[in-house]
Amino acid sequence: MQYYEDLVPGSTDRFGSYAVTREEVIDFASKYDPQPFHLDDEAAKDTFFGRLSASGWHTCAMTMAMLVEELKKNEQAGLGSPGVDELRWVKPVYPGDTLSVERLLVDKRRSGSRPEMGSFRNVVTVTNQHGDVVMTMKSTGFIRTRQPGGAD
Amino acid sequence: MQYYEDLVPGSTDRFGSYAVTREEVIDFASKYDPQPFHLDDEAAKDTFFGRLSASGWHTCAMTMAMLVEELKKNEQAGLGSPGVDELRWVKPVYPGDTLSVERLLVDKRRSGSRPEMGSFRNVVTVTNQHGDVVMTMKSTGFIRTRQPGGAD
Repeated sequence: MQYYEDLVPGSTDRFGSYAVTREEVIDFASKYDPQPFHLDDEAAKDTFFGRLSASGWHTCAMTMAMLVEELKKNEQAGLGSPGVDELRWVKPVYPGDTLSVERLLVDKRRSGSRPEMGSFRNVVTVTNQHGDVVMTMKSTGFIRTRQPGGAD
Repeated sequence: MQYYEDLVPGSTDRFGSYAVTREEVIDFASKYDPQPFHLDDEAAKDTFFGRLSASGWHTCAMTMAMLVEELKKNEQAGLGSPGVDELRWVKPVYPGDTLSVERLLVDKRRSGSRPEMGSFRNVVTVTNQHGDVVMTMKSTGFIRTRQPGGAD
């Protein structure tokens, strides 16, 4: 099981392979982001997107699926997240794309008030099969410490 | 139809009523964020969440559903979004909660390079039925201008 003490600031991981399907793009958008350019090729034609593209929130969700799959492989003792900064939808995500993740662990810090946990900051970069960056974000996560009150 | 020229910086809108169901929380988490505290009351008991709670990305998606419903009421000529800043999951969202949105239009700006569009910045605050703020974010949106190259 991966705890706070096991996180190495400065390290980079690459993982994930998420196949984006037309069915899932339309299903997500129908429920949560039914703007024309996320539902229909014709309606997207005269927009920035050019053709049917995934909701940015869908891209976040697919990215989270890859992150959680990786957390589970490492049995990471995750405790959730307080939020995200500088979330950027850089390029459209289209049906047929395959997404993957690069995650840089920026830094980590023990909690002052709760010795059983620490936090860390990531920069997450999502790329499609052409190597184009489609999304970036800076996220913060909470994780259990192996040794409450120990040194880093 | 609502264009760039119709946006009033400093104005605040309140809208939306999204009933969060246990079925939808588990369905979303199963697909996109299968961490134990988003799937199961028992697994959530000893965490910050206390009981089964919605994925933060699910809260974003439900918020987007309310925002798009409001855009459609106003027939807003929206052109998507480049991203979000300072997304904060302030309190857990639980099955049985009802969410609503307050949106403050901070400012707007015509595009220098593309006279057919402008951008605006919002502060979005999501509240549950108890009046507790559960999520906040600062988002940017693109919108068509009625008069390309006109004055604000």
